[in-house]
Amino acid sequence: MSGSIFGKLFTVSTWGESHGKALGVVVDGCPAGISITEEYIQKELDRRKPGSNPYGTKRNESDEVHILSGVFEGKTTGTPISMIVYNQDHHSTDYNEISQYYRPGHADYTFDKKYGIHDYRGGGRSSGRETLCRVAAGAIAKKILHHLDIDLFAYTTSIGDITISENRFDRNAISQNKLYMPDMVAAEQAENYLKQCIQEQDSAGGVIECVISHMPVGIGETVFYKLPAVLGQALFSIGAVKGLEFGEGFAVSKLKGSQNNDAFYIDENGSIQKKTNHSGGILGGMSDGSPIVFRLAFKPTPSIYQTQQTVTKNGENIHINIKGRHDPIIVPRAVVVVESMAAIALVDLLFQNMVCNINHIINFYKH
Amino acid sequence: MSGSIFGKLFTVSTWGESHGKALGVVVDGCPAGISITEEYIQKELDRRKPGSNPYGTKRNESDEVHILSGVFEGKTTGTPISMIVYNQDHHSTDYNEISQYYRPGHADYTFDKKYGIHDYRGGGRSSGRETLCRVAAGAIAKKILHHLDIDLFAYTTSIGDITISENRFDRNAISQNKLYMPDMVAAEQAENYLKQCIQEQDSAGGVIECVISHMPVGIGETVFYKLPAVLGQALFSIGAVKGLEFGEGFAVSKLKGSQNNDAFYIDENGSIQKKTNHSGGILGGMSDGSPIVFRLAFKPTPSIYQTQQTVTKNGENIHINIKGRHDPIIVPRAVVVVESMAAIALVDLLFQNMVCNINHIINFYKH
Amino acid sequence: MSGSIFGKLFTVSTWGESHGKALGVVVDGCPAGISITEEYIQKELDRRKPGSNPYGTKRNESDEVHILSGVFEGKTTGTPISMIVYNQDHHSTDYNEISQYYRPGHADYTFDKKYGIHDYRGGGRSSGRETLCRVAAGAIAKKILHHLDIDLFAYTTSIGDITISENRFDRNAISQNKLYMPDMVAAEQAENYLKQCIQEQDSAGGVIECVISHMPVGIGETVFYKLPAVLGQALFSIGAVKGLEFGEGFAVSKLKGSQNNDAFYIDENGSIQKKTNHSGGILGGMSDGSPIVFRLAFKPTPSIYQTQQTVTKNGENIHINIKGRHDPIIVPRAVVVVESMAAIALVDLLFQNMVCNINHIINFYKH
Amino acid sequence: MSGSIFGKLFTVSTWGESHGKALGVVVDGCPAGISITEEYIQKELDRRKPGSNPYGTKRNESDEVHILSGVFEGKTTGTPISMIVYNQDHHSTDYNEISQYYRPGHADYTFDKKYGIHDYRGGGRSSGRETLCRVAAGAIAKKILHHLDIDLFAYTTSIGDITISENRFDRNAISQNKLYMPDMVAAEQAENYLKQCIQEQDSAGGVIECVISHMPVGIGETVFYKLPAVLGQALFSIGAVKGLEFGEGFAVSKLKGSQNNDAFYIDENGSIQKKTNHSGGILGGMSDGSPIVFRLAFKPTPSIYQTQQTVTKNGENIHINIKGRHDPIIVPRAVVVVESMAAIALVDLLFQNMVCNINHIINFYKH
Repeated sequence: MSGSIFGKLFTVSTWGESHGKALGVVVDGCPAGISITEEYIQKELDRRKPGSNPYGTKRNESDEVHILSGVFEGKTTGTPISMIVYNQDHHSTDYNEISQYYRPGHADYTFDKKYGIHDYRGGGRSSGRETLCRVAAGAIAKKILHHLDIDLFAYTTSIGDITISENRFDRNAISQNKLYMPDMVAAEQAENYLKQCIQEQDSAGGVIECVISHMPVGIGETVFYKLPAVLGQALFSIGAVKGLEFGEGFAVSKLKGSQNNDAFYIDENGSIQKKTNHSGGILGGMSDGSPIVFRLAFKPTPSIYQTQQTVTKNGENIHINIKGRHDPIIVPRAVVVVESMAAIALVDLLFQNMVCNINHIINFYKH
Repeated sequence: MSGSIFGKLFTVSTWGESHGKALGVVVDGCPAGISITEEYIQKELDRRKPGSNPYGTKRNESDEVHILSGVFEGKTTGTPISMIVYNQDHHSTDYNEISQYYRPGHADYTFDKKYGIHDYRGGGRSSGRETLCRVAAGAIAKKILHHLDIDLFAYTTSIGDITISENRFDRNAISQNKLYMPDMVAAEQAENYLKQCIQEQDSAGGVIECVISHMPVGIGETVFYKLPAVLGQALFSIGAVKGLEFGEGFAVSKLKGSQNNDAFYIDENGSIQKKTNHSGGILGGMSDGSPIVFRLAFKPTPSIYQTQQTVTKNGENIHINIKGRHDPIIVPRAVVVVESMAAIALVDLLFQNMVCNINHIINFYKH
Repeated sequence: MSGSIFGKLFTVSTWGESHGKALGVVVDGCPAGISITEEYIQKELDRRKPGSNPYGTKRNESDEVHILSGVFEGKTTGTPISMIVYNQDHHSTDYNEISQYYRPGHADYTFDKKYGIHDYRGGGRSSGRETLCRVAAGAIAKKILHHLDIDLFAYTTSIGDITISENRFDRNAISQNKLYMPDMVAAEQAENYLKQCIQEQDSAGGVIECVISHMPVGIGETVFYKLPAVLGQALFSIGAVKGLEFGEGFAVSKLKGSQNNDAFYIDENGSIQKKTNHSGGILGGMSDGSPIVFRLAFKPTPSIYQTQQTVTKNGENIHINIKGRHDPIIVPRAVVVVESMAAIALVDLLFQNMVCNINHIINFYKH
Repeated sequence: MSGSIFGKLFTVSTWGESHGKALGVVVDGCPAGISITEEYIQKELDRRKPGSNPYGTKRNESDEVHILSGVFEGKTTGTPISMIVYNQDHHSTDYNEISQYYRPGHADYTFDKKYGIHDYRGGGRSSGRETLCRVAAGAIAKKILHHLDIDLFAYTTSIGDITISENRFDRNAISQNKLYMPDMVAAEQAENYLKQCIQEQDSAGGVIECVISHMPVGIGETVFYKLPAVLGQALFSIGAVKGLEFGEGFAVSKLKGSQNNDAFYIDENGSIQKKTNHSGGILGGMSDGSPIVFRLAFKPTPSIYQTQQTVTKNGENIHINIKGRHDPIIVPRAVVVVESMAAIALVDLLFQNMVCNINHIINFYKH
């Protein structure tokens, strides 16, 4: 229980169901003095907005965010920041049918077994719609990263069989196609693939990569709160994620130590650098100063229009055709969610790191 | 800070350095009434004991565990269980040299930058030796799973290029080869591969898989404490892990919804079953009653005997030859560590689940 | 930071400022299956409503609560319950003046020093108005206690010099006078005392007592989460509380062991009972089956109309006359807040207790 | 469950039973770079050592502390500090008898009912002996306070009816009498009182006061982690404490606002000061720069030699005469425990405060 709260110092607490009155998030532990406006938060929210592209759900929500507390005269005050988005586009009637059976690939069955009661409308609490709360909180976390000159961005690297080409990698391209791919050629191929999926009443999976540059060295706590461990919790909390890897990732299992170790050297400025970055920016569970790189595998949307076999709550075998509005792919809308969860986790670790040495504490209180 | 404590209700807190006086673990929140002996814990510890096979480090520790508290007349009392292993085989002199430079692939650099001081002997706190504490705690968690008839076991699926064959899968084989592979043919091939690595003064990576059967449905909390999220933190806290995937894992990104969805059906006993288990036993972030299946990618041991390039703490480029005793592969000794962390995480979630419905609480207190 | 979240399993998270857009609370970890309506919550809120008696602040808020999530078809679903109260009666202009100086006895000075920015309007986050969020969450906690047949109630025992008489103690009287005293004679005397305070432009303090009956034995965790420790945090988090005592309380320091020990005996039903209850229902940090009894000392409202000496933010000595609407006494409106915080703390401990013995866990999962 | 861990960032985890093999504590989250020796910790431990005065238990333990981890070359490394004290003076035979019945005023009954199993020897986990772990951890916390020039000390203000005189208050006297009273006259009177208690086979209670000077302003988090709330948990976790009050404490209930408010003024150095300190150094739940002052009421030792009425575990009414070695008073040995818990709580809050403003974080990472 009490699973909707993340973080030790920078604490993010989400609430709300897909078809309830509203969804929201409370950010507790945000430092005072940060400029935050509803416009800024809204801009991030709009990146995951449904209906913004033909491959997203057709649900049409304005998803307008309101800041209800914790910001005074445009600045955070150090008290909890409550943000809310009211639900408007309720087509609950679409969901009466699904209250009778368990949709394959969905949370209906497990929620029902666990709680004995389930707001089934649109997936209720397990709806992807819950992630808009993370994006709102993530927008604040990103602002903090920005103040520290830390650069964080994510993008789609593959959809189905279509994968971006390293040679064509172009960061500017990410915002120029609806699939958030840093490669316009791959993006076009992927669009064709998705059109085919839609035609087949099917859905597609994909991979998102995230890169974080200019992280200070030493972020991540020893043992259980290592940087990848905290990111591990944060990222596997995103519903459709089935895999996560850092740096070389699964490929590392086939490498030898001599291939995988990153040699250190002193650069022309006398700084310590790594010749390679197989580690994905992490050594000993902490940031090592190189870019942090990780990839996430997303499953195809479980809601498809094809006929599927399943069971009713009364224990009957049936065949169903799910109606309603569904994304043929989760990946593009999840890009900003990945960024948000990564930012939230990193801010929490950056804060925790500040008491790692007594000199930091003496400097803080005596100077 | 405070990174050495894991769990909300079943809390595991490890301490100790590789070459300090001792290492230990405190398990707080273990229920009363469980039979625990030092012999039982020892048996688990011996599974990760160094020196037990030619591919493990040559360090010879008896690693004898002592239970110092929390067990009375052979049973747990509900109070913290403190377990300790004294260090005996200190060859700290081997480590004087490494105090001068940063070993590639190791935590030396990041620890030094973070804390400004570092017990460099044998890796200090970041030594794999810390994991013996997790195994001791994991032994208790496994006992609890055993009481609930939950079956959990892990094994090596690949080392370098050598992968087990599904056709030859034999659970009994796991304990019959030093690499913990469920396939004696692959185990022999992998031994040959490792011999070659040793000859080349190099090291190898690999993959470990873990299967958990007979989990009750509905374990895992909504949103941030989903089953894969909690396992994500637990498993990425193991030092050499670079990737984690559940069920179809990364392969899911290329599947379509119609291929990946697991159809439900009612079996002859009237129970709900899944036709397939692409989900790896998890739906909506909770156990779905099917076996939970995940895989972990381990990097090759960073300590290799080949000459490597690195830098001194004084900022000089140098070439080094690491001495000392090192595993050419981490994977076989990590099998029991994976089991332990999985067991610890699952017990914590099993406990949290007990207050999910008011009827459970009324039953507990009024009957 | 992150100070607005209370509890381990039954987690209460409040947000909002006195003169912001709204205040609210998120209850995460509430079990599914509890009947909750807005009417029920409202009834509790109305007990602390300002303006309901001549001794409360004259601020006139309807304080209407809305449940935004976590309740479906009248029952809790196990997901976070978000409740909100919109602010309506903003007289922010009253507060422009106080933005210039630090009011004696208030949080202005410390908030300003800590955060560097402060929503000073009506005390902002440190306003007593924040406690309405606790009352809304406490209403849910009370419902859980009610399901377990645990009886919890609080009342005023003294205001200024006026103290209730044990002989006249009448539980029914509590709701029959505006001061929540279980003694109508004392209540009348206290009303006269308060009238005098108002005439003198002064304010009064008092004492609240709380009694919890039919608690199961053994609630409270060993060492740092003892029953009085958790109540200690919960109750001292109420702004104006300056003292807390259990059972004999401070008087215990003058008693001898032979006077203070409560003898056990077997009653006619074969049950273990205590002859006396000097312990206030707590032994070894756990509930002992006798009524839990504690008392809280509340300071007089710091906002008084008399001229006071203080300083401006610019460092000048000044004399001030605080305007606005202020309670001459906090105590009567705090009675329901005390009940709420006690209920929240006890529910969290009742939940934690459920995993104290392996047999409970086996019973839960195997039967 | 999991009640033996205190703190968010500076985390103290105690373990061990009175008559088990050892007791110990793990301090996780202690910053690197602090000079710590076993001699330093020992000195603090010796202040609560049994047998050091005629009013303490006659148990003769050397209580020698060993630091097992987290300190390298005399300095903390930022990793968990494990400290252990082995038990030597086991007279478990004294305790066979008490395994049969429940001692009045002790935890026997509640532990037995909660856990179903109980290490009854010497009180097991609920023994006052557990507090030596807190003193060892507190010694480290005090070192941190010392680095920040914060002055914290406690002393006995009353034993039974004997109370110190404000006029004779002498800080130097505290260490010059066995009762830790800052008034040699009162100390002599109290010794006579205790002799009488011993003669009567009875025990005495008392009051301890603690003063913390030079705290920075603004320590304590809003709402649930207010300074008195965190101290409330910390101090009520000490077994025999029955009351806690800050500043004017319970007396505040009879004061008027005009009497209790502390007027601010600008002193000759241009600093903000308070004319009085009725608040006990706390405003709005945070330190206000004035000395923090609190008092704790301790109950008389429940173990007395007089015949007492109680019940056996088999449900029989009996009369008992407790044997063994018992303090006629807890108070003098608890003085250092109070200091320790206060120091631990304050260090945790001092750490949490460091991320209250974005400028602190920017300064830390960018300068």
